Amino acid sequence: MSLRLLHSIFFELIDKFLEKQKSLFKPAIKSAVTVTIVSIQELLSLRITKEGLREDDLVELCRKTIHYSVKTSHPHFHNQLYAGIDEYSLAGSWLTEALNSSQATYEISPVFTLVERAVLKYLGAFCSWKEEEIDGIFSPGGSIANMYGIVLARHKMFPHAKQKGIYNIGELVLFISEDAHYSFIKGAIWLGFGSEAVIKVKTDEKGRMDPYELDKAVIKAKQENKLPFFVGCTAGTTVLGAFDPLIPISNICKKHNLWMHVDAALGGTALFSPRHRVLLQGIEFADSITWNLHKLAAVSLQCSAFLTRHQNLLTECNSFNAEYLFQSDKYYDSNYDSGDKSIQCGRKVDSFKLWLALAARGERKIELLVDNVFEMVEYAVQKIRERPSFRLVLSQFESSNVCFWYLPPLLRRQNCANFASDPRLAKVCPMIKSKMMERGNLMVNYQPLKSKNLPNFFRIVFTCYPPTTENDIDFVLDEIENIGSGIII
Amino acid sequence: MSLRLLHSIFFELIDKFLEKQKSLFKPAIKSAVTVTIVSIQELLSLRITKEGLREDDLVELCRKTIHYSVKTSHPHFHNQLYAGIDEYSLAGSWLTEALNSSQATYEISPVFTLVERAVLKYLGAFCSWKEEEIDGIFSPGGSIANMYGIVLARHKMFPHAKQKGIYNIGELVLFISEDAHYSFIKGAIWLGFGSEAVIKVKTDEKGRMDPYELDKAVIKAKQENKLPFFVGCTAGTTVLGAFDPLIPISNICKKHNLWMHVDAALGGTALFSPRHRVLLQGIEFADSITWNLHKLAAVSLQCSAFLTRHQNLLTECNSFNAEYLFQSDKYYDSNYDSGDKSIQCGRKVDSFKLWLALAARGERKIELLVDNVFEMVEYAVQKIRERPSFRLVLSQFESSNVCFWYLPPLLRRQNCANFASDPRLAKVCPMIKSKMMERGNLMVNYQPLKSKNLPNFFRIVFTCYPPTTENDIDFVLDEIENIGSGIII
Repeated sequence: MSLRLLHSIFFELIDKFLEKQKSLFKPAIKSAVTVTIVSIQELLSLRITKEGLREDDLVELCRKTIHYSVKTSHPHFHNQLYAGIDEYSLAGSWLTEALNSSQATYEISPVFTLVERAVLKYLGAFCSWKEEEIDGIFSPGGSIANMYGIVLARHKMFPHAKQKGIYNIGELVLFISEDAHYSFIKGAIWLGFGSEAVIKVKTDEKGRMDPYELDKAVIKAKQENKLPFFVGCTAGTTVLGAFDPLIPISNICKKHNLWMHVDAALGGTALFSPRHRVLLQGIEFADSITWNLHKLAAVSLQCSAFLTRHQNLLTECNSFNAEYLFQSDKYYDSNYDSGDKSIQCGRKVDSFKLWLALAARGERKIELLVDNVFEMVEYAVQKIRERPSFRLVLSQFESSNVCFWYLPPLLRRQNCANFASDPRLAKVCPMIKSKMMERGNLMVNYQPLKSKNLPNFFRIVFTCYPPTTENDIDFVLDEIENIGSGIII
Repeated sequence: MSLRLLHSIFFELIDKFLEKQKSLFKPAIKSAVTVTIVSIQELLSLRITKEGLREDDLVELCRKTIHYSVKTSHPHFHNQLYAGIDEYSLAGSWLTEALNSSQATYEISPVFTLVERAVLKYLGAFCSWKEEEIDGIFSPGGSIANMYGIVLARHKMFPHAKQKGIYNIGELVLFISEDAHYSFIKGAIWLGFGSEAVIKVKTDEKGRMDPYELDKAVIKAKQENKLPFFVGCTAGTTVLGAFDPLIPISNICKKHNLWMHVDAALGGTALFSPRHRVLLQGIEFADSITWNLHKLAAVSLQCSAFLTRHQNLLTECNSFNAEYLFQSDKYYDSNYDSGDKSIQCGRKVDSFKLWLALAARGERKIELLVDNVFEMVEYAVQKIRERPSFRLVLSQFESSNVCFWYLPPLLRRQNCANFASDPRLAKVCPMIKSKMMERGNLMVNYQPLKSKNLPNFFRIVFTCYPPTTENDIDFVLDEIENIGSGIII
């Protein structure tokens, strides 16, 4: 069988597909969601046969897979915290996929070992940490990066837990805001603390952790003989995009001797912009950071940097010196082997695609792309405010998310204070979303926010790629309004 | 800047490179390892500039990256438990990289959600589990898959740990063999049990867990008021490639009511071969399994299936119903959302590349490729036995690894019983490896095995891709002998 043939058709398929994504190709999203689950299954004929498929069938199968998949790089895909793909990063990931390297040791991954070290130092420098302090690792997603933070905090305070476990230490507790990402709680469950060990601190009206409430919560936990050890701040919350006030929180962490982790999965990329990095003021005091470059920065999934300013702590905490992999009698300096810092053994190369994208664009271009996101947020807020059928969830948004309600005429007539308590409002988003998916030219997510007692509202998210334009935003609002005008609640 | 240009040059680069790997292109490995760390750094000039690199510089940078990287698909790369790449799987991974999908919800990943479900059911069927029981998830590597096993076991026995943590349960202990993968211990540390919670059970002379010793160890732990909950068996150990006897172990697990996890990261792929699946007899009794298709089956990194026959337990254990992602009022059946089973949030698509490779080749071809690995192991064992300068570590090997010493003339003259205790033997492998890397046409790993008191020996590993030939094996042995004859210990 000729693999060259398959490859060349592949290039053609993917190349055409990338071209399509640049245009407003409406059926691009439509195709993915209007067909039923059953028909996708039939079309793909998910069977593995004795003799294998013919080359033609394989090409057809790939064609259908692309056809029925959601085109996340479509300019009107605003459904997740990630969206488009920086094409340089795609080139980088194709290269690393082809080389099939693992980041375990320097000897099998010499170039990528050095690239990862360099990129981590580069990212860490944005936090104003000293170069010699900066350490880190690329992790398979932000959830696991947040777990790295929790585990390092535990190790810093209770190094014997590595051998003895957490049994005889006491009841360890973690603090996050009520709007923090759910991965902190999943992490606390995995790591043996349990969900009740996570103490949720109240946020202000914008969704930012209230430092005074944090202080109170820590004091209360101590009074209850619990052992506070970790504060997980958020720079860019998942729904409202809020930035916790890092400087006051850092003071409370110092006062109580707590590890300060910043989940900057979403908001870290604002550090590339001199105009907007003020949002992360105080990041220099963080002990560790999660920064997902596959979100706002549009590097292909996954590209999660875990950073810490405690040089060597990752190694102290996670190393186990497997004798078959990290031998001490190697022909090179085995300090270059990064694998023993990690909780993984084999590990994908996630650093190269980021580095290629950064090197290709240069800092100036990235800064412009980040600034464009913030400008588009401002434009969207202004346009939503101007339309009588929409209501903003907040008067301003700090990050790349904009949250709002569409109000059918019936609800619009009520006064401002009342519409949110009308039980019919919660049904509006699911109804519009369902129609939206039938039309297939726009994808926007909705959710409630129980911490603020808010019923279902839409959240549009912007990313650096593809760069959003004012026309795109007008289209999104027109489309929601157009669908919304036809629903009956 | 023209991205089309970059892409087309890329295709050419990668295409040429893949062609090269098929031939015995000696400098392919050499280039990666003979240059020093400093010179790679200079050549790559790891700087991110203000204005970005020119297109020509980017292409040159990619060219150098490929040039200085280890070609893991080279026919003489036998250094890790993974090696070559099935090119259909590479095509699959390029496709999923371009689509930039995440496996969190059905709505953003309709095709891949269904593919993942189908592939997990397909793999689970090899374990003779009932179709309706089979559940699982693709995980970023075998280490994290093994952690899934530990966490499910904990949840099955102590469901309240999800809320309350493991504090008040008692001292939980896990059992693995002394030759099991180090990820069990790293996992036990992460998950809060501590390394001392892992009880290592003695293995027999071939490296297989001794069920009688397991039984004794469990009884002893109970007498010490510890709480046994998990047995981690291995199907294909990392160094000797041994398969633990699953049937007797399953009886002991039943007797003591312990979760039986099988780390079949390496050996699971033997299930594709009716001739060799006997090695995994008893896998039907396992509660959960780790199976890395990126090892023996040569799917591109990473492709780790975690499988369990406890339908819904992954959801019960890991779900947290994040309100912004797993809404209950969706326009489709949200049971299709696989994300809440996972400890990740965004998750790469690892199932499609496997499915494409299986669909393309068909079961018959895969069976032949697996059988070839075992035949090559037999051939290698026979040839090593015939050569007076080599000594086998075991008289037979059950899996895809073959372990042996090269003996310089000085050591060869000693009688069989003595050579392994000669302190000079441990120096032979590092010396040969260092020369091997200078020559650059072969890459084989070495390690000691302290559990068996064995000094450094070589381990060659075979995988389905590229299929190893008898000539390849002769080359490996000739090359080691040739280098070895020149070293002075």
